[in-house]
Amino acid sequence: MTPETLVETAVAALDGIRARRPLVHNITNYVVMNSTANALLSLGASPVMAHAIEEVADLASIAGALVINIGTLSGPWIEAMVRAGRAARAAGVPVVLDPVGAGATRLRTDTSLRLIREAPPTVIRGNASEILALGSSGAGGRGVDAAHTVEQARAAAVGLARSTGAVVAVTGEEDFVTDGRREVRVANGHALMARITGTGCAATAVTGAFCAVERDALAAAAAALIVFGVAGELAAAGAPRPGTYQVRLLDALDEVDGGAVRARSRIRVAATA
Amino acid sequence: MTPETLVETAVAALDGIRARRPLVHNITNYVVMNSTANALLSLGASPVMAHAIEEVADLASIAGALVINIGTLSGPWIEAMVRAGRAARAAGVPVVLDPVGAGATRLRTDTSLRLIREAPPTVIRGNASEILALGSSGAGGRGVDAAHTVEQARAAAVGLARSTGAVVAVTGEEDFVTDGRREVRVANGHALMARITGTGCAATAVTGAFCAVERDALAAAAAALIVFGVAGELAAAGAPRPGTYQVRLLDALDEVDGGAVRARSRIRVAATA
Amino acid sequence: MTPETLVETAVAALDGIRARRPLVHNITNYVVMNSTANALLSLGASPVMAHAIEEVADLASIAGALVINIGTLSGPWIEAMVRAGRAARAAGVPVVLDPVGAGATRLRTDTSLRLIREAPPTVIRGNASEILALGSSGAGGRGVDAAHTVEQARAAAVGLARSTGAVVAVTGEEDFVTDGRREVRVANGHALMARITGTGCAATAVTGAFCAVERDALAAAAAALIVFGVAGELAAAGAPRPGTYQVRLLDALDEVDGGAVRARSRIRVAATA
Repeated sequence: MTPETLVETAVAALDGIRARRPLVHNITNYVVMNSTANALLSLGASPVMAHAIEEVADLASIAGALVINIGTLSGPWIEAMVRAGRAARAAGVPVVLDPVGAGATRLRTDTSLRLIREAPPTVIRGNASEILALGSSGAGGRGVDAAHTVEQARAAAVGLARSTGAVVAVTGEEDFVTDGRREVRVANGHALMARITGTGCAATAVTGAFCAVERDALAAAAAALIVFGVAGELAAAGAPRPGTYQVRLLDALDEVDGGAVRARSRIRVAATA
Repeated sequence: MTPETLVETAVAALDGIRARRPLVHNITNYVVMNSTANALLSLGASPVMAHAIEEVADLASIAGALVINIGTLSGPWIEAMVRAGRAARAAGVPVVLDPVGAGATRLRTDTSLRLIREAPPTVIRGNASEILALGSSGAGGRGVDAAHTVEQARAAAVGLARSTGAVVAVTGEEDFVTDGRREVRVANGHALMARITGTGCAATAVTGAFCAVERDALAAAAAALIVFGVAGELAAAGAPRPGTYQVRLLDALDEVDGGAVRARSRIRVAATA
Repeated sequence: MTPETLVETAVAALDGIRARRPLVHNITNYVVMNSTANALLSLGASPVMAHAIEEVADLASIAGALVINIGTLSGPWIEAMVRAGRAARAAGVPVVLDPVGAGATRLRTDTSLRLIREAPPTVIRGNASEILALGSSGAGGRGVDAAHTVEQARAAAVGLARSTGAVVAVTGEEDFVTDGRREVRVANGHALMARITGTGCAATAVTGAFCAVERDALAAAAAALIVFGVAGELAAAGAPRPGTYQVRLLDALDEVDGGAVRARSRIRVAATA
């Protein structure tokens, strides 16, 4: 994989999402359900948000991807996440995990580790503190914001990818994506993305949409972050304040296309030492 | 009922909502709670969102209408929906049911049928796949999007109306509303409404507001879809992308008035064969 | 405290929020989780939304403030609110309570009174009907909107402050804030704030952010209402409709600064008779 082939994969996957409108099943937190569904709709995918234990297996197994986000946990939801994850795995449906706040509380760390063990994800996307908490032991964030840099989490990400078989994406100023052998850095995005809630959650859901149309999970995860980051840049035109930026980010997920991706992608590709 | 009298009923009901600010009690899904409350506020109604089994009967029985939306189900909520529906019926409060995803999973189909049986709704509003799932047996959607056309669901809608006594509204490119004897078709609306989440849910909630001020449930349901559809058209001025469109739809629910409704309504009225 | 010193305290606290980005732990209702998190982010604070009983004590005790909002109650959440409130108190973390709908249903009144008893709040912020329901007995609102004026709730607010030791803030056309000895009236704000959902909830969360950086709870609560009200006025420029207003209110929480606060604050300060 070269930067050039990755960009073309990203463009092809984006076109594929719009042509095939993959069903993306989300079990996500209350805070971002609406904004996540709208991000997927703006991008061109077809979201369904459902968490009832009676129906998650049915939905996950017919979806193009399952996205599990632990942002607002409770007991029954954890069981539903495990059941959905297993059903998706059994049906060959890619699973993307967002371990929101792992490291900040034991409940979140333990739940993330249980999900990784019992329903191994295809992609894990988190901030540096979350990946550190899962890749090593003891490091913790403050609330749900990263207290570490992406570079600090690099070794933990590689280790986590190797031990779980998942692609691991650490997002931050420059995103780092690895499958344990190859690594991609994505420098797209905008500082305003940290000023609205749910941007990371939306990036995870968008990763689900890309996994639904692209089988190489490393390429899919990197492509999702490129496209999402480019949309974040398009939305920042005119230097809007946060409320307006949130609206424009949805507009930009609809607007972003191959031309914008080719013109704006800022990526590095390497083999892992 | 002629198209002309229906339009005047719609205008009078819209004015009535703004004059009386009816309390609309919503038991709805997590994804759309915020956008639904805002849609009702923009229209001029007074929303309350509450689902605790300890209080739903109290609220439903003093409301102008009860709206039950099964978009994100779980066991305790189902019991609360049944209790609220019964209390509303006992108090003469109209009940509007949105069977989100009926046909897509057994839990949703069964819950919809139970609600229809135990707390018969005044109006059922769904997409074609949902109404087919309730009006016949076996047909199913994919996720929560319609996989069928409104016309395909026409006979099921008439049958469901006749067997339950409810007005049935099937929404799509041209909406179909029936009480089993009369039928109204509403061609208002805009394609962008399908690009944001919760539009159908908002239409159901708006139907609740119209039922609170207009006793003829067929006229109320049709009026709601006319007004909501006209608002959807007003919001599309300037061809916005989805994020901006979502904001403008709320603006348009505040802006829409008798003049816009009279100028833009596109309806057909007929007796059912 | 004079109006002049209160304004300077408000400006200093606003600057303090932006410099220190206090972590504000919210246990709030489903309807406003997203908009509340965004309001805090736009203001400059760092929100975390979490309600699981297993983790609320951990989060509340490391937060700068805990905000408890009872807008959509259920049994497990009530226990989590009590546990979080106790942990915050034990750690010296200020607790802000929003008794949404107190007086409208017994569940809400009883839960508010239990929280006041078992985890005494630093500040209670409600509308007139809610404060009347807690400060006296029997008065009730309709749904979650105030059916009384702020002035009608004045004596109840003073009594509630004296009996609980909390600062009590009654919001409405002119807000009334008291600690039982001193009182502040804040006339800032805009009528459009009542046309979107969650404005009161956001004001409560913003009060939490101010309590995190200002130890005089009366000054913190008044400062929060001044700053939030001024933002509400800035957002109304150009007379937007409700959808656009909601977006601009977030923008204005980012934009509001010492200059705007000094130029626009409309407050009265008095000793309570």
